[in-house]
Amino acid sequence: MGTAAFEYYQANRERFLEGLKDLLRIPSVSTLPAHKSDIARAAGFIARELTEMGMEGVEIIPGKPAAAGGPAQHPLVYAEWLHAAGKPTLILYGHYDVQPPDPLDEWISPPFEPAVRNDNIYARGAVDDKGQTYLLLKAVEGFLKADGKLPINVKFLIEGEEEVGGEHIEQYVRSKPVRLKADSVLVCDTEMFAPELPTLTTGLRGLVYTEVEARGPSHDLHSGSYGGAAPNPFQALAEIMVGLKGPDGHIRIPGFYRRVKRPGRDELAAWKRLPFKESEFLKKEVGAKALVGEKGYSVLERVWARPTLEVHGFRGGFTEEGAKTVIPAVGTAKISMRLVPEQDPKEIVRLFTAYVKKLTPKGIQTSVGVLSTAPATIVSPHSRWAKAAAEAMEQVFHKKTVYMRCGGSVPIVDQFEQYMGIPSVMMGFGLPDDNLHAPNEKFHLPNFYRGIEAVGRYFELLGQ
Amino acid sequence: MGTAAFEYYQANRERFLEGLKDLLRIPSVSTLPAHKSDIARAAGFIARELTEMGMEGVEIIPGKPAAAGGPAQHPLVYAEWLHAAGKPTLILYGHYDVQPPDPLDEWISPPFEPAVRNDNIYARGAVDDKGQTYLLLKAVEGFLKADGKLPINVKFLIEGEEEVGGEHIEQYVRSKPVRLKADSVLVCDTEMFAPELPTLTTGLRGLVYTEVEARGPSHDLHSGSYGGAAPNPFQALAEIMVGLKGPDGHIRIPGFYRRVKRPGRDELAAWKRLPFKESEFLKKEVGAKALVGEKGYSVLERVWARPTLEVHGFRGGFTEEGAKTVIPAVGTAKISMRLVPEQDPKEIVRLFTAYVKKLTPKGIQTSVGVLSTAPATIVSPHSRWAKAAAEAMEQVFHKKTVYMRCGGSVPIVDQFEQYMGIPSVMMGFGLPDDNLHAPNEKFHLPNFYRGIEAVGRYFELLGQ
Repeated sequence: MGTAAFEYYQANRERFLEGLKDLLRIPSVSTLPAHKSDIARAAGFIARELTEMGMEGVEIIPGKPAAAGGPAQHPLVYAEWLHAAGKPTLILYGHYDVQPPDPLDEWISPPFEPAVRNDNIYARGAVDDKGQTYLLLKAVEGFLKADGKLPINVKFLIEGEEEVGGEHIEQYVRSKPVRLKADSVLVCDTEMFAPELPTLTTGLRGLVYTEVEARGPSHDLHSGSYGGAAPNPFQALAEIMVGLKGPDGHIRIPGFYRRVKRPGRDELAAWKRLPFKESEFLKKEVGAKALVGEKGYSVLERVWARPTLEVHGFRGGFTEEGAKTVIPAVGTAKISMRLVPEQDPKEIVRLFTAYVKKLTPKGIQTSVGVLSTAPATIVSPHSRWAKAAAEAMEQVFHKKTVYMRCGGSVPIVDQFEQYMGIPSVMMGFGLPDDNLHAPNEKFHLPNFYRGIEAVGRYFELLGQ
Repeated sequence: MGTAAFEYYQANRERFLEGLKDLLRIPSVSTLPAHKSDIARAAGFIARELTEMGMEGVEIIPGKPAAAGGPAQHPLVYAEWLHAAGKPTLILYGHYDVQPPDPLDEWISPPFEPAVRNDNIYARGAVDDKGQTYLLLKAVEGFLKADGKLPINVKFLIEGEEEVGGEHIEQYVRSKPVRLKADSVLVCDTEMFAPELPTLTTGLRGLVYTEVEARGPSHDLHSGSYGGAAPNPFQALAEIMVGLKGPDGHIRIPGFYRRVKRPGRDELAAWKRLPFKESEFLKKEVGAKALVGEKGYSVLERVWARPTLEVHGFRGGFTEEGAKTVIPAVGTAKISMRLVPEQDPKEIVRLFTAYVKKLTPKGIQTSVGVLSTAPATIVSPHSRWAKAAAEAMEQVFHKKTVYMRCGGSVPIVDQFEQYMGIPSVMMGFGLPDDNLHAPNEKFHLPNFYRGIEAVGRYFELLGQ
């Protein structure tokens, strides 16, 4: 086994950390048009690093410009190194865009000023997914800089729209079968089941994200003069929410569960063996008074293999300090559903939209907008790729690799499978308490370094 | 009948309008602490005008400063003229504070840049209540400037907290029985039933304004990773809203209707004779697809004499553009109730709070904050004061005065009655389409001028 790359990893830890901090300082929030230039800066940063480490064909691929149909697409970054004749070709996937940082006042240190505390680096995007994208770059850099070559062929494909639906990468994967020809995809955007426990993710939930707009009066009304006669869009949205999901967590949309299947017996049994304590999960991760959800399913099955429906916020009306007594003309609810394999996002959008219409009370007009959709995915833990990945992680973590699913979505996994028949491996180095999509997002630095090493080992094992 | 004052009104219309515009330019929004200095400017403006017209004892009465218990109180403005020996004494009430102007983007002209279009003046506070407060000043000014005296004694009491609960004026009324000794109060803060139709308001609904805060997880969570197990505060608030009020408009709080009585037969019959068309009201005032509310009650009874419960907005979560998938730690609903006579705000707060607790689902903690309360009021249309007011309006409008109630609240009416036994008269010059508390608030200028004249006639009739 070559040791030069691994020595390089050890010797360059500080530089790697400084590089990651530079990337984290760029507020590349993909949902907010105001951050368009930051998105461009982040793509440029990735491309520059790829060039400097010796990758070839580095290209920033611009997306469609803004048009009546929607906002501008964000650029992809592509790069390749294809000189390992006869060896497999891996696509390395990550994303440089991040979630919005709000609520800002709950951050201990500012979201775009990375700060190291207790072996963790805190910043928006630390773990999702800049830290995990950057470790892919550094794993490759070790080989190119220390050995002058890689044990396998690689193609980087880094996107900037993972948090907003990933339209650009989907179009690219569909339209570039030759350029993206590969044997497997390595996705570095998931987490470990527990600290120190090497983990491969074998399933992802899908997503349908909607906005339900309710219109009542033609203009805001005084609730004194009109309360009791004018329809209130927020009361309507409350009724719709309760109509969509019961207090028991059961989703009431007719046909919603039609295609839902439970995981196999072996998988459910393996989940039971994972080191999971409901009381710890409640206390350390959720921090609420109690857990909720459908009866008859374990917590892990509920978050990994059962569909859900959540409301993320209500826009409109009066929400500031004080007592404004308004019946608002318009209110909007941001509602998403997580899907499981076999559920078809298009069908779910149809069922959801029809049922929202049905639930809409008298006097109110609703319209449903769909912001993003992605189907759920299952990947096999028995492929050559998954087996090598498990072994690579075991070599670094000195523990048996476990298999979990993830309740979140990584749409690209399904797209490589569907359009190109390429299987993915999801090696992830996040921790359950990393505060994804929340204030004080962090990445555990030992996992950043072990991630680089595990990916390096994976390349070596595939190249043998 | 003296004509000098009325000639003065005619001759000074343009100057009155310019003065009103100056007052409207001051953004004296009482709910927002950022406007503290504007509140002070508006109080100063009123005091200066009172002094210049010849009122005596003009005083800006500061409120309690900001303390741990709450924000600073806003100043009252007092002034008196007491030289009509043997004649009655009237308190003239209005308020110089206004509602917040949002949503700003729906205003045709900016809310604090008064603009005249089609005989209407558009600005926040145009009708509620700067325009109607200012007409009281101008009615008095006419007598003092043209005749050098008033036909009755008057005491102005103008407040700056009407839109935020009016704590200061309530304390003042309770604590100054000698200074505020008077025979009746003239409140100029209501509206006419229809254009050209002189109207006295004989009843007001009360108000309880609350904030219900729901807490679920200890921090914002990713809905992918936790959806299906973590409690969602907004789902809880939706369930609470639906628990509080049914789709039929019936409020479900146990005991809520216990003390509610229907208006007398004569009053209901008089309401039936008012020129009211439900279809016109729906189309011209509400602008929704349909009206809603409790079955078995007319629209006028529903908005004047039935209690209601409305949600004004939900604070928290993600409400910006895009698709952030968060289960928020905290969500807050702003919920108010309008009360009818006999309902006790304290009892309603108790019933509401207890029922919100009962409706709170598993995993969620709720707390109820009360921002403001006021009981409902009924005033007699048969008092000497009401009869003179009706006649004064008839002389100006050349139509028979009608009697209506108002679904909104003017807490001071109840306080003068309760603490001092002084009856009020509510003469109002607003129109149903004046957009109170909404964008494009306006005041119909002919009503501004007729209001001045009607108040002047009222003084004369009382002085005869």
